[in-house]
Amino acid sequence: MPVTQSMFLIAETRDQPMHVGGLQLFIPRAGQTSEELAEEIHEKFIAATDIQDTFLKRPASPANLAGYTAWQHAHDIDFDYHVRRIILPRPGEIKNLLRYVSLNHGALLDRSRPMWEVHIIEGLADGRVALYNKIHHSLADGVTALRMLQRTLTTDPDDRTGTAFWDNQLVRRPRKERRAAAPKPGLLSRVTGAVGSALEMADELVGVVPAAAKVAATGVLNHDFVAPMQMAPDTLLNVPIGSARRFAAQDWPTERLRAVARHHGITFNDVVLAMCSGALRRYLEDNEALPDESLHVCQPVSLHTDGDEASNAITAILARMATDVADPAERLREIVASTSTAKDVVRGLKPLQSLALGAANVWPLAFAPVPGFVNFTPRGFNLMVSTVPGPDEALYWNGAKLDGCYPVSIPMEGLAMNITMTTVAGKANFGIIGARAQLPRLQRILDHLETALTELEEIPSIKPDA
Amino acid sequence: MPVTQSMFLIAETRDQPMHVGGLQLFIPRAGQTSEELAEEIHEKFIAATDIQDTFLKRPASPANLAGYTAWQHAHDIDFDYHVRRIILPRPGEIKNLLRYVSLNHGALLDRSRPMWEVHIIEGLADGRVALYNKIHHSLADGVTALRMLQRTLTTDPDDRTGTAFWDNQLVRRPRKERRAAAPKPGLLSRVTGAVGSALEMADELVGVVPAAAKVAATGVLNHDFVAPMQMAPDTLLNVPIGSARRFAAQDWPTERLRAVARHHGITFNDVVLAMCSGALRRYLEDNEALPDESLHVCQPVSLHTDGDEASNAITAILARMATDVADPAERLREIVASTSTAKDVVRGLKPLQSLALGAANVWPLAFAPVPGFVNFTPRGFNLMVSTVPGPDEALYWNGAKLDGCYPVSIPMEGLAMNITMTTVAGKANFGIIGARAQLPRLQRILDHLETALTELEEIPSIKPDA
Repeated sequence: MPVTQSMFLIAETRDQPMHVGGLQLFIPRAGQTSEELAEEIHEKFIAATDIQDTFLKRPASPANLAGYTAWQHAHDIDFDYHVRRIILPRPGEIKNLLRYVSLNHGALLDRSRPMWEVHIIEGLADGRVALYNKIHHSLADGVTALRMLQRTLTTDPDDRTGTAFWDNQLVRRPRKERRAAAPKPGLLSRVTGAVGSALEMADELVGVVPAAAKVAATGVLNHDFVAPMQMAPDTLLNVPIGSARRFAAQDWPTERLRAVARHHGITFNDVVLAMCSGALRRYLEDNEALPDESLHVCQPVSLHTDGDEASNAITAILARMATDVADPAERLREIVASTSTAKDVVRGLKPLQSLALGAANVWPLAFAPVPGFVNFTPRGFNLMVSTVPGPDEALYWNGAKLDGCYPVSIPMEGLAMNITMTTVAGKANFGIIGARAQLPRLQRILDHLETALTELEEIPSIKPDA
Repeated sequence: MPVTQSMFLIAETRDQPMHVGGLQLFIPRAGQTSEELAEEIHEKFIAATDIQDTFLKRPASPANLAGYTAWQHAHDIDFDYHVRRIILPRPGEIKNLLRYVSLNHGALLDRSRPMWEVHIIEGLADGRVALYNKIHHSLADGVTALRMLQRTLTTDPDDRTGTAFWDNQLVRRPRKERRAAAPKPGLLSRVTGAVGSALEMADELVGVVPAAAKVAATGVLNHDFVAPMQMAPDTLLNVPIGSARRFAAQDWPTERLRAVARHHGITFNDVVLAMCSGALRRYLEDNEALPDESLHVCQPVSLHTDGDEASNAITAILARMATDVADPAERLREIVASTSTAKDVVRGLKPLQSLALGAANVWPLAFAPVPGFVNFTPRGFNLMVSTVPGPDEALYWNGAKLDGCYPVSIPMEGLAMNITMTTVAGKANFGIIGARAQLPRLQRILDHLETALTELEEIPSIKPDA
């Protein structure tokens, strides 16, 4: 097992489960009840007994600090365990669904079997059926997990060959009409990736073994590029955490965010960051915990150039979120200035340096399991915000329309909140996961995101020529 | 924190969660729907904000091997986290309920908050409402947990003062009509207790610090009494385990077991053991895993004498289950002979020796977290079977009748199955918990228990004068 996989086993503690998740909502097709859709999903899933390798793998033994262990392959899958069904309590509102995900995302996956679960969830009053998926980060990073889920979907509403995401047929006989369309090239394709991918590259190219020590050393010793170790302020996001989670999710029309990007002449990613900044500012004010200095954000970024689609060059940038600025227009200007600088620096670096920057920027991950570590360490950033582009077309599973696809990521020691946004089928889906005790009333951030977006729509354009 | 509490924190691993549970079933009162009962329970529970000390305690820091840590007290309780609601999937059979408990009993409790949960479960087709409770063994042993649950019940079907089991009012103003009646003296009161209590006594009287090492040493070095270290056979019950669980539960009329006891002139506990023996023999045969030698069972036993109700003298005995004997009458004779001998030995010992025996018999607990330990250690027994007497009268919560109360105990490394039986309101409630991957088709043991009981009813009396 490569250390880039085992490090997620090593970093995992009971307070810091290292699985990623996804929450998908489906609208039953015409004439189908939610019960029928749930039954259909369950039937198709448990019939998919030809299982992809990823979903058969389990660690052979505990991974030590050098990462040495191997993958074993389970010979069969106990579907009664991995495929779960549940009905939400009344009134079947979205908050009941988010609460279910919150309560289940804090539970560790069993290491003695392949580390994934899927929950088929009924009981939403609006008739939609939800799928909540968990997979260990050592098996797939967040982006890969979302891609795997989307692989079962099709743009054809009449297609009735829907199957489970672990079905080997999807790999063996990929059909063009089945696969969801690739994201359109453009700004979005430059902003993707995840911690796992960045570290994987760092390992392959730099030969980092054990990853933990080397990544940290790189972060501490290299002062050639924009200082990844500069001190971010102490906030309630940067504290030790327990295992309990709080999950909030909501979607906005992608077109609303795109219009804001055009209005101000900024990138789609800047709009996402500005929404997060405005929302976090209000959330921290709610809790009387807004620091005088700006929050710093870490963002995974793709280094793809247009002629370089095959490469996997991914790194991470740091940017100021300007949460210390009250005026929304001024705040937006500062954010755009900060992300432009950070991106320019990354573009000017050689590939190796870029990768090291990425690794250095996420280095706290490596030491997170050390008790008390988070209390005594200068931090480079306060939270991670990831943007993951998906296909723009409407997607279906056996005729049931995908109506939301929210990432459920990983809070860590010292990084109590994670925001991941994915664009799918015309919607920008925000998933905000936080440590439960440390982040009270996290749901309010959804209203604050809407307020921040409205503000961005209403303020005059910050274009120099506007 | 006494080491007798912290040792359950130390012994806990992700594969060996150290919480006990209880599953209670309630019949709504006349004119009440199951939805109304569930709502009523939820309302009363979240209104109970004056919380007993036990349910506010959380460990201040990780406990080390010497057990040093302290309890902190939470100032408030996040009821949205601790009090959960769920509806079972169709068809709402008992197997759906048992599956829900199986899947949730494998999940660790969050250590950063008081370590308990209650799940209010609807959706049973028969209209009953279930409560599944989890509490960490460092806060309460299985017997104490069952007592706490019963404290909220009353023998008065018209009583409408039902509240939550953590309500401080139950402690501050205990009312006679509210408290469930104490069990009648007799055979049952001699057979009670739990691992936790035995070890607590061992610590208090022998001064065992750290408990783990001393308990093991006692077990290995003392050969004065019936050898607790004699080798029990290797079975599929005695293997390393994962975190996933399988739970089976069923009740039988207490009177059926009592009649068998009278028929054969044996104790109630012997009837329970004989049922377990017959059922395990068949279960192991199903799996082509019946050993040539008999299984050995460890049973917590009360040392109370009739004039000694205040003392807490609890130990454990070992007995042969005679699973190697095909003939049911002969098997029963061997079981009775074995438990009589074991009990005589215990009675002839001084209190300190008895306690040491108890501790020695459960010593594998102390080393269970050591990786690989279970593979290289001679074992004294193959499983634990506990019998916990409760009140005989019908019990009610706000007029809803208690219709089953099943213990959910703890499988451990090398002890993949645990059987606990509690008598409440005229029913003998068996709860069988097992490691999921290691114990396939555990539900079948319920049929085998019925078969074994029928056999005991049908064979001629083994009374010498019969």
